[in-house]
Amino acid sequence: MDKKNKRIITISREFGSGGRLIGRRLAEKLDVPYYDKELLDRIAEESGFCREMMEDAERKAKNSFLYSLASAMGTGESGPESLSLNERFFLAQFDTIKEIADEGSCVIVGRCADYILRGMPEATNVFVYAEEADKIKRAVQEYGVPENSVRKMMKDTDKARANYYNYHTGRKWGKPINYHLSIDSGYLEIEDIVDLIIRYTEMKLYRLESY
Amino acid sequence: MDKKNKRIITISREFGSGGRLIGRRLAEKLDVPYYDKELLDRIAEESGFCREMMEDAERKAKNSFLYSLASAMGTGESGPESLSLNERFFLAQFDTIKEIADEGSCVIVGRCADYILRGMPEATNVFVYAEEADKIKRAVQEYGVPENSVRKMMKDTDKARANYYNYHTGRKWGKPINYHLSIDSGYLEIEDIVDLIIRYTEMKLYRLESY
Repeated sequence: MDKKNKRIITISREFGSGGRLIGRRLAEKLDVPYYDKELLDRIAEESGFCREMMEDAERKAKNSFLYSLASAMGTGESGPESLSLNERFFLAQFDTIKEIADEGSCVIVGRCADYILRGMPEATNVFVYAEEADKIKRAVQEYGVPENSVRKMMKDTDKARANYYNYHTGRKWGKPINYHLSIDSGYLEIEDIVDLIIRYTEMKLYRLESY
Repeated sequence: MDKKNKRIITISREFGSGGRLIGRRLAEKLDVPYYDKELLDRIAEESGFCREMMEDAERKAKNSFLYSLASAMGTGESGPESLSLNERFFLAQFDTIKEIADEGSCVIVGRCADYILRGMPEATNVFVYAEEADKIKRAVQEYGVPENSVRKMMKDTDKARANYYNYHTGRKWGKPINYHLSIDSGYLEIEDIVDLIIRYTEMKLYRLESY
């Protein structure tokens, strides 16, 4: 794929909507790198931060107040070293996502990539959601989440994602204007949604080139 | 188009996003009836309500409090005759939209059609929005809105649409879960968006038929 056809696709998704599967299939079909948990490995490698600590910080965002507090509290010193751990994790993530997008086409799931790459013409930001019953069905049948804990896991995960996003971007997670396309995954097959997103990026690229 | 291929497309849109143009082109391309202002004519014809009064009621929804008040105040009598004028307009609209959708494929713009036709498997609900600068540009260049009043007109129109929708449906206008697909119209040509929506309805129909 040459530079002219560069395609960066970011996927934000509700828990149980199949967004990760869509991202993975998109990357396979376009034959480009896929970043989800892989992103944390690379950030850890480049920044020296411990991967488990970063994952832990993301999960803790489910309590909005405590996350804001922990993020705002620096060390009291001056310079970047004075920032809280949460802020330093986010900055490392910011740098790595920018770097990955500069390298070429790719699919990135989660981690505020839509915000970090805003203004990059090759980026297409997609939000995937679904009705509660559809998400529960998928989480139980495909992700293997026990039926008695699926509602709580869904609620907690989406809350953490929303708080993390809202805190670091100043935007509202899931609000249409932050994405080029938002799709309810409950009415189509994963393969159809992948095709629709690819079609969208082709149209967008074509229009970019003709200006 | 036979019954099996019945397609109802509802379009909700921000002012200046080109949603009405998209709806009109969709109807032309699918060769099905298009309802926007045409809906008011039909409601007027069937219900006997005055078209101008209905349009006026919709516009007045820009003041949420006064609209709620006027809608809630009935005549004090019992039976449907006791409802406020706003409620009776909405009920007439409800009946006509149901009737139109029963007749066959069509495109309906605005007027809570997504909500009224919820649960109808042939219905595809689309929300069209765009960034402010793109909407202003379109409103001035294509709709001929004077530049010095475009922001106010945009704000007032969307506010009336949101209040009207939120009051009558108990949902939130523009929230992704109310639509199958939400598209930022600022990055594609109208024709591309029309194609994308048609592609979506084809995939959805195909999936419906295979169950």
